[in-house]
Amino acid sequence: MSKFMDVHHGMTGISDDQLRQAHAADLAIQNEEGVVFERAWADPESGTVYCLSEAPDAAAVQRIHERAGHRADEIHPVPLSV
Amino acid sequence: MSKFMDVHHGMTGISDDQLRQAHAADLAIQNEEGVVFERAWADPESGTVYCLSEAPDAAAVQRIHERAGHRADEIHPVPLSV
Repeated sequence: MSKFMDVHHGMTGISDDQLRQAHAADLAIQNEEGVVFERAWADPESGTVYCLSEAPDAAAVQRIHERAGHRADEIHPVPLSV
Repeated sequence: MSKFMDVHHGMTGISDDQLRQAHAADLAIQNEEGVVFERAWADPESGTVYCLSEAPDAAAVQRIHERAGHRADEIHPVPLSV
């Protein structure tokens, strides 16, 4: 398992409810790919959402996000953290 | 206090020690601007570093990062989180 930070653009105006629903949609199916979504942060003004996860690989993160209806624009492995 | 995600580009090859030293340099002076740096994640391959903080405003985050020697390329308020 590795840690990933993925980024979604174009989410301008996202609400707290929409962020929670999107995160819940990921959590509902994440086990099928061995992914654990840990946190997500959103900037409604710039339309940016950051998601932190643990996963076997970036493709597994993307498969869950795609099936949940919100494909990630960037997925970066973040092997280092403090 | 608001939550911010800032992003540094061009940090290709950053090591675990370098990330820890950079974070420690922020922590050493963050009180002077009322900033609390919480976490940081790095992708040495793409050279991207993400920092999560609580701060009075984005300018305060930037002042600490600049004085610590690593100006942020982007600073996004992230008022929503799950």
